[in-house]
Amino acid sequence: MNYRNICAVPGMVLVITGISMLFPALWSLYYGDYDWPAFLWTGGVTVILGLTLYKVCGITGAFQAKEAFAAVVLSWVAAAGFGALPFLLSGTLPTFGSALFEAMSGFTTTGASVFSDVEILPHGVLFWRSFTHWLGGMGIIVLFVAVLSSLGVNALSMFKAESPGPVIEKITPRISATAKILWYIYIGMTIVLVVILYALGMPLFDSLCHAFGTVATGGFSIKNLSIGYYANPLIHWVIIAFMFLAGINFVLYYLALKGKDLRVFWKDGEFRLYARITLVFIAVIAVTLLWTTNYSSEAALRHAAFQVVSIMTTTGYATADFDLWTTTAKAMLVILMFVGGCAGSTSGSIKVGRMLILLKQGYLELQRVLHPRSVTQIRINGKAVRPELVMNVQQFFFIYVFIAAVSVTVMSALGLDPVSAFTAVAATLGNVGPGLAEVGPMRNYALVPEAGKYYLSFLMLAGRLELYTLLVLFLPSFWRK
Amino acid sequence: MNYRNICAVPGMVLVITGISMLFPALWSLYYGDYDWPAFLWTGGVTVILGLTLYKVCGITGAFQAKEAFAAVVLSWVAAAGFGALPFLLSGTLPTFGSALFEAMSGFTTTGASVFSDVEILPHGVLFWRSFTHWLGGMGIIVLFVAVLSSLGVNALSMFKAESPGPVIEKITPRISATAKILWYIYIGMTIVLVVILYALGMPLFDSLCHAFGTVATGGFSIKNLSIGYYANPLIHWVIIAFMFLAGINFVLYYLALKGKDLRVFWKDGEFRLYARITLVFIAVIAVTLLWTTNYSSEAALRHAAFQVVSIMTTTGYATADFDLWTTTAKAMLVILMFVGGCAGSTSGSIKVGRMLILLKQGYLELQRVLHPRSVTQIRINGKAVRPELVMNVQQFFFIYVFIAAVSVTVMSALGLDPVSAFTAVAATLGNVGPGLAEVGPMRNYALVPEAGKYYLSFLMLAGRLELYTLLVLFLPSFWRK
Repeated sequence: MNYRNICAVPGMVLVITGISMLFPALWSLYYGDYDWPAFLWTGGVTVILGLTLYKVCGITGAFQAKEAFAAVVLSWVAAAGFGALPFLLSGTLPTFGSALFEAMSGFTTTGASVFSDVEILPHGVLFWRSFTHWLGGMGIIVLFVAVLSSLGVNALSMFKAESPGPVIEKITPRISATAKILWYIYIGMTIVLVVILYALGMPLFDSLCHAFGTVATGGFSIKNLSIGYYANPLIHWVIIAFMFLAGINFVLYYLALKGKDLRVFWKDGEFRLYARITLVFIAVIAVTLLWTTNYSSEAALRHAAFQVVSIMTTTGYATADFDLWTTTAKAMLVILMFVGGCAGSTSGSIKVGRMLILLKQGYLELQRVLHPRSVTQIRINGKAVRPELVMNVQQFFFIYVFIAAVSVTVMSALGLDPVSAFTAVAATLGNVGPGLAEVGPMRNYALVPEAGKYYLSFLMLAGRLELYTLLVLFLPSFWRK
Repeated sequence: MNYRNICAVPGMVLVITGISMLFPALWSLYYGDYDWPAFLWTGGVTVILGLTLYKVCGITGAFQAKEAFAAVVLSWVAAAGFGALPFLLSGTLPTFGSALFEAMSGFTTTGASVFSDVEILPHGVLFWRSFTHWLGGMGIIVLFVAVLSSLGVNALSMFKAESPGPVIEKITPRISATAKILWYIYIGMTIVLVVILYALGMPLFDSLCHAFGTVATGGFSIKNLSIGYYANPLIHWVIIAFMFLAGINFVLYYLALKGKDLRVFWKDGEFRLYARITLVFIAVIAVTLLWTTNYSSEAALRHAAFQVVSIMTTTGYATADFDLWTTTAKAMLVILMFVGGCAGSTSGSIKVGRMLILLKQGYLELQRVLHPRSVTQIRINGKAVRPELVMNVQQFFFIYVFIAAVSVTVMSALGLDPVSAFTAVAATLGNVGPGLAEVGPMRNYALVPEAGKYYLSFLMLAGRLELYTLLVLFLPSFWRK
């Protein structure tokens, strides 16, 4: 294990994190708020510390796989750890556990908050929360790889450790070029959304924050009622559309742009399943809303669509308090918390690509029961899927459910009621944000005990790095020579 | 598809079912109750119909695999369908949905009941409920195979369709001899338990009914307070011991008897995990009980042990209303509903053997992340496990969770609250019996709407036949020529 490599990467990530704190400081100064010193001081210290680490350690030679894992995990912990300090220094959060929870929730694009009233917060803090979403959405390491094209062979292993989705493909032979393209698409999507929201009457500051939270599938809002604060239905529909777009595999955008052909989307099996699940769930929930509320047809469809897309893409914005909806609708939303968007998107959770493999393999396995000697493989997009990948995905599903089950017990022991404990775990491990009951969309995670905040922060990171990257660090063989 | 084979087997099973109704009729006459005509009439009609089917159809030649599946599923549906009639004819249950639920719950050894007061029931009905457990526990088809040794090659495919556990081994080369041995061990265990319970002061009728419910890991009691009715702590401990014994792979008993060596148990990886999970869960829950109740140490340990072993072996008896326990304890019991006992036992749910494979494969998969080129296999009891079996088990887990998730939505739509819907599904699919909240251990399934009773009956059968056997019938290719 080369410990110099492992400390150089978090060093560089700290530099990026520190520089990013300049933006909230500027917004704070612009609005005449009190929180700009917290960002300038933390930013300065973080940049200096990061540069020191990077210079003192330095990257020496090629990475081993395990060095890449350790470097990526440490980078995320460092970013969240230092990203938490402005909450403490500005006096907006009282304990490090709360501040770490909020920062980890930001970077991992979870969007679960410990603030009970966000509308009293200074603008620096508000901007920082949303900006951490945006940095974490496409990936700090991916950004780092895009910026430092000199990383060469090491870039790929880190890129994969941060974005381990089952279907990600290298777009270009050079991984740093791939990272750049992904970030360009991401930035482009953000700019378009900001312009549209601003044109629809949302103030610029609000537009920026909500665009960050949307394209990163984050979910932090600057309003207590989340997107429900904005009365204009068009704003709801626009955000529904962009959440859905952010939940698509970004490689498809590149292919569509390059080939000038929109059919690449429908040719992709994962996209088709993603679109179908979205439509079916919207339809069913809209019908339950029409039955049980006095919404108009448009409102029922809009609120159903908003919540379904928001939860499925693991964004977590809300236009309605879905904790008050029927048990059926809530059960369906909780199921979506375990599905997530497409692999290679900014969304979290298990992901549609894995579900597609599991569903196809399920059908194949039933056929094998009837015809045990038929050795066949499932096919995705016309290509046979290797059994090793299928097993990896099947095992991912088991580990995901296993961690969730253990975590529900842990959260119960910390005093949460069954529904809150279950949905708090589903919503943090899946990087969704709001759960139900005590952690519902119009409530928050403030009541979770300090130990629970650390635990849920761990779950958010585990979910964001898709389990394996974080869990391998717990193997005894990882630390052996 | 040879439809004559498919109808001959349920015919024979109906004969067994019909003859079995003689016993409740005799108990009813002995106690001077009113329900003996219901059993004599139904029994007579069932035997005649069964014999007719068996004679008219007849078994012609060797079975195809799919004929075995269809025959086994039809046999179970027939047994539960006709087994439900005495509840209707005796006037103890008002609708066929309720009666089918109760009978299916009996045969599948689930033990979920729609009776709100069992102590007012006539003795015939009480005996029948418990006796269906006993018939279904080791398996009606296994019994049928044991009795009709002339089935030859067809016996194995049916045996496997009814008992598809991942680790079942043929003990003897002849499958009918294996079936006989399993039934002898089962009968022996039942007799020993009846004698002990009777010696501890339980009336003979109660001893018989509870012995059936225990060794079959069923759970129907003849008392509203379940085993909690009996004040003698020794009775609780004895039933804990026998529930635990019934949750062990019966093949191990055969090997231990044959080799006169008790070490076969501890040499078995599944048994070791089964024993360890049991002990850890008992210890943790006992501690929570000591903290939160005023139980004595013995009572805390006993109630913890009783509920843990009862739920894990999917029996479902209770000595305490665990719905009133802490959320932590309840969360742990719900997790156990998804674990179950050992493969080859009378218990239901996913089973420890599958969990063992999933845990080992999880560890292997993490190592593969670090060393992608290391092609290795997991080992159970010193033998490498084929990747096809691992995939089968992984896929079983996914299908199990998938069906549970869909079913929770269905039960929510039928009006159950979240905790009741979730645990009703877990408790019926896992053949456990009681859930939490509205379907808690001191309550019942009477409030579930008629459609829900049919749906849960389907889940009980799916769980008992370990999903694949039932689900293949839904493949379009199953019905094609």
